[in-house]
Amino acid sequence: MDGGVYMEESRIVEVKREILADNTQAADEFRAARRADGTFMMDIMGSPGAGKTSLLLALIERLRGGDDPLSVGVIEADLESDVDALKIKEAGVDSVELNTRGVCHVEMGMVEKAFAAFGDRRYDCMFLENIGNLVCPADFDTGCHTRVMLLSVPEGYDKVYKYPPMFAVVDALVVTKCDYLPLNPDFNMEALHEAARALNPGLEVFEVSARTGEGMDVFAQWVRDRRTATVQG
Amino acid sequence: MDGGVYMEESRIVEVKREILADNTQAADEFRAARRADGTFMMDIMGSPGAGKTSLLLALIERLRGGDDPLSVGVIEADLESDVDALKIKEAGVDSVELNTRGVCHVEMGMVEKAFAAFGDRRYDCMFLENIGNLVCPADFDTGCHTRVMLLSVPEGYDKVYKYPPMFAVVDALVVTKCDYLPLNPDFNMEALHEAARALNPGLEVFEVSARTGEGMDVFAQWVRDRRTATVQG
Repeated sequence: MDGGVYMEESRIVEVKREILADNTQAADEFRAARRADGTFMMDIMGSPGAGKTSLLLALIERLRGGDDPLSVGVIEADLESDVDALKIKEAGVDSVELNTRGVCHVEMGMVEKAFAAFGDRRYDCMFLENIGNLVCPADFDTGCHTRVMLLSVPEGYDKVYKYPPMFAVVDALVVTKCDYLPLNPDFNMEALHEAARALNPGLEVFEVSARTGEGMDVFAQWVRDRRTATVQG
Repeated sequence: MDGGVYMEESRIVEVKREILADNTQAADEFRAARRADGTFMMDIMGSPGAGKTSLLLALIERLRGGDDPLSVGVIEADLESDVDALKIKEAGVDSVELNTRGVCHVEMGMVEKAFAAFGDRRYDCMFLENIGNLVCPADFDTGCHTRVMLLSVPEGYDKVYKYPPMFAVVDALVVTKCDYLPLNPDFNMEALHEAARALNPGLEVFEVSARTGEGMDVFAQWVRDRRTATVQG
């Protein structure tokens, strides 16, 4: 068989475009308000099982410690369950569970409602753990100052070719589960860096393992620097 | 923080509901037509990196061999690239590349267009490798006779709690990359079986490794039996 079949637009794409216009305006307002009140917000995206919750726990440990401890809150989005929200709570971190009722991404209305649920409490850093999905969340601005995506070693480096939109919109790519690299000799880290930067020349790339701690201090320092640049910039 | 935030419906959900009504009718017609012409169709879903293409290659090898060899065609859906379509072609399998132009799922109009691209050729089995996404494809009937989902061991067994809709709609759950089990002592296979069957009492569960071949013969036999029951039933 030669050649492929290319789709015209799905009806759902037209509708999404309308929704996105409203969403982007609300996101810009929310982002400015958080900058003004000193809350640095970061959106964490990636496939199911990419290791978002584990990375978050390892990151928070580093942000709350050291010479300049930061306060942290988490918005934990899930389709239905509270599995991840409970893990965050068990670590003693203030969190709000955002249940999208099956929706595949987080929209601004959801972020505003979750943020309001914290009441008067304010934090130096607030993280949004997005829905596990390498496709849809890329389209929806969540009003955060920084967006990062995770790609785990077991998923395979070729995801950069197959799911380019998310690689193109984030500020950083965090390659997770790097302790799996010896088991994945086909994982071509160099090709991943090259292809990701071709999509997004300003992209920062980190290689970490939340399990062993490898690379986590460097990533945590980058998050601190982004926060400083945002709220004091 | 106590309790969670539950969303009212997103506007996108209302629109999806309208699209789905048309989609389901077209899917029923397509399914009946394929049954009549002897083509068994199977939809293969799962996260990015769950191992859909590898499973497909290991499955096809077993279907095309043995005492009763079957002919096979593949519709290879991707957001943008032809990485997977090329792997299938290199294995000498007739395939059509279905490029969704960034859409997060496959709809009936896409399946009809891809099927038409095969021209007059007919196959005993035709597989649709869906977009790597554990959320959206669950909602869209693709006109196949059987739907299976993959969950890879590195993703973690807790995905059954976090992404229940797909577990609820498929005929089989294929746990892939079982050669990773020794590295994932926390992977609770028993809890996965139990939770998946609570969502879907008729669900078949297979444990395989496409790399080592473990469990693949059993799974291939199940696919053959589903085909027989469909086209001769």
